[in-house]
Amino acid sequence: MNLHKEIYQMGEQALAAARRLATLTARKKNIILEAMAAELDARRADILAANARDLAAGKEAGLSAALLDRLTLSEARIDAMIKGVADVAALKDPVGTRLSTWLRPNGLQISKVRVPIGVIAIIYESRPNVTVDSAVLCFKAGNAVILRGGKEAKHSNLALARALAAGGEKKGMPAHAVQLVEVTTREAVREIVQLEGLVDMVIPRGGEGLIRAVAEMARVPVLKHYKGVCHTYVDAKADLDMALKIAVNAKVQRPGVCNAMETLLVHEAVAEAFLPRALAALREKGVEIRGDERVCGLDPEAEPASAEDWAEEYLDLVLSVRVVEDVTAAVEHINHFGSHHSDAIVTADEDAAEAFTEGVDSATVYVNASTRFTDGAEFGMGAEIGISTDKLHARGPMGLEELTTYKYIIQGEGQIRE
Amino acid sequence: MNLHKEIYQMGEQALAAARRLATLTARKKNIILEAMAAELDARRADILAANARDLAAGKEAGLSAALLDRLTLSEARIDAMIKGVADVAALKDPVGTRLSTWLRPNGLQISKVRVPIGVIAIIYESRPNVTVDSAVLCFKAGNAVILRGGKEAKHSNLALARALAAGGEKKGMPAHAVQLVEVTTREAVREIVQLEGLVDMVIPRGGEGLIRAVAEMARVPVLKHYKGVCHTYVDAKADLDMALKIAVNAKVQRPGVCNAMETLLVHEAVAEAFLPRALAALREKGVEIRGDERVCGLDPEAEPASAEDWAEEYLDLVLSVRVVEDVTAAVEHINHFGSHHSDAIVTADEDAAEAFTEGVDSATVYVNASTRFTDGAEFGMGAEIGISTDKLHARGPMGLEELTTYKYIIQGEGQIRE
Repeated sequence: MNLHKEIYQMGEQALAAARRLATLTARKKNIILEAMAAELDARRADILAANARDLAAGKEAGLSAALLDRLTLSEARIDAMIKGVADVAALKDPVGTRLSTWLRPNGLQISKVRVPIGVIAIIYESRPNVTVDSAVLCFKAGNAVILRGGKEAKHSNLALARALAAGGEKKGMPAHAVQLVEVTTREAVREIVQLEGLVDMVIPRGGEGLIRAVAEMARVPVLKHYKGVCHTYVDAKADLDMALKIAVNAKVQRPGVCNAMETLLVHEAVAEAFLPRALAALREKGVEIRGDERVCGLDPEAEPASAEDWAEEYLDLVLSVRVVEDVTAAVEHINHFGSHHSDAIVTADEDAAEAFTEGVDSATVYVNASTRFTDGAEFGMGAEIGISTDKLHARGPMGLEELTTYKYIIQGEGQIRE
Repeated sequence: MNLHKEIYQMGEQALAAARRLATLTARKKNIILEAMAAELDARRADILAANARDLAAGKEAGLSAALLDRLTLSEARIDAMIKGVADVAALKDPVGTRLSTWLRPNGLQISKVRVPIGVIAIIYESRPNVTVDSAVLCFKAGNAVILRGGKEAKHSNLALARALAAGGEKKGMPAHAVQLVEVTTREAVREIVQLEGLVDMVIPRGGEGLIRAVAEMARVPVLKHYKGVCHTYVDAKADLDMALKIAVNAKVQRPGVCNAMETLLVHEAVAEAFLPRALAALREKGVEIRGDERVCGLDPEAEPASAEDWAEEYLDLVLSVRVVEDVTAAVEHINHFGSHHSDAIVTADEDAAEAFTEGVDSATVYVNASTRFTDGAEFGMGAEIGISTDKLHARGPMGLEELTTYKYIIQGEGQIRE
């Protein structure tokens, strides 16, 4: 069977599964999730053996130590995946919730009810835990999932997806509710993201290159964020001790993630009081500083920032720093150079805070807190499938609710339109 | 200036306007809407003169009487547009509404707040009232709008858009909040729908050809419905008098619209009792019947339906009719051949109703009522900008709320991530 036919058939099977998944009760779904977790536990040896094949191939291919680490499974990492499945089972099922109900003057009762989206495709890179996390979150929200992981984790992903499917089907999960595309070429991604009428949504998870490629090839809606160029703006009325603590945390606590700060903006009125202290503290943590002219004037060790620096997602211990005139200039800088992900103001001035939260066109806007909190678990939403910097459908952390849509159900007694 | 540059500049101007629109209060927006209505009133002569030019050109080009009628403006139609602006002013402003607020154990207060989407492009065909309806609805929800109407209504649209902009700007509407692209070529549409980073959403309004063309060219999200292949299913336990009334209403009350019925499905247990009566009543209203074998057996005047009939949006006094085994077969038929728009069951059996509303994967699902009610005004949502059969962002009638997105605003007291 050729690739096009094979993937089209998977799409049709996923759609058939999705229709059945939409009618499962929360209780039934949780029983299935328990069975998935049990099967992961029962197949530890298989999973680790599959992972060992991927690691051997990865070493031979010369993957970096960091990549090999992300690829590696261990008993502890399998424990974490199993716990992740249990955590998702514990989340409230959003499907069936009446979002609102109202009565029209002609007696029609209109209800807006949460329903699953249908078929969701996840395109991801090397971390095998994404296989389990994505599949169970999509399943709990009543969706069929088509997974396509990276070639480095091919055997691991297959072992994990088979365990989920086998475990789930023991307890009545519809066949093809969880499917993994074994072909790891770019062509396979193209076929998946062009399954109009079968796949309802694609979520790419990985680097900017992968996400751009998916968005360009896709004929079905894509929910994504390209990158996180996050800002902290220290206002004239900031508590400078608080600002220092927040800036250091946002930059260095985990610099390689999308909600880490990449640019620090400082109001000119506090630049002299704040920057020497702040930059020294950051440099002590190993951060390289790239500043505008005024920053370089205050800090002789700073490198001059280039025009490209302001839009750069370093994902590393590098920070661009700029002095701005006021909150309006900070908002303009963020809207122009930022990525609409997570941005923070530190201020004791309520008007400045309001100007910032109203003006900054980002998914999450913070007053007096670190941007590092943009995360489904930190928001109390439970597990998340990613962060959306899109504006349609879902924005910010995407949990179970964001994996649903709604339908209107109208109850009448024979009403016709006059 | 070439077309690409011209439209790119309009996009940049729209984005700048959108940033300012996002901070306008409801009161301010309503004052601006009043000024728009007043300006339409003041410019009646200009508008009618522009319309006369379009009509003359249309007659010369040999447009059909129906198209010329849709193109024609009159004092009464201008009155209706002005009333439409007042109706939108009277609607509650969704922007700024807190959708939810919660407190995390670490003291962070997370609020999910409605905000405008940003820049919305509307691509439409010949009816000039769409210019006014779309612009004011987008504006009230805080969005900048880029309008691109059909070439037949070019002068009318320009006169209307200029009146809205001039009226609004008298009361402080940001410049470029309402813009009309005067170039009516396909190339202009392509340029608009590829304005990534400037246009947030495109809504095509018109025939299936226009909508498919927009969806294929677009690089920004499109909210749309291709067509409305709507069904009425008459169940074994239906009140047959009610079923007759609903079926006739759904088919003939206004056959040329997307929520009119195109296919009637009848449970085999009531086919003999229902079909002869129903088909006679429909035929009396001028409806041509195309039936499956069993329908043709019961009704010698029916034409045999071809395979294509089941997926056809007639928009005319034509109906395909099929006898089905049970509610499950009806659901399968609808999910397979339908367009996920509006479908109805007529039944007194609650289990059948539930199987139908759960099983049918459509934006709006009716029990004992006509599909003709799928409409923003009939739902009590006020004006609508269209019906979405997409599953992401908005589904069903799209009113003011559906022209917004949300952001998370997080209020802290210096919290950092440990």
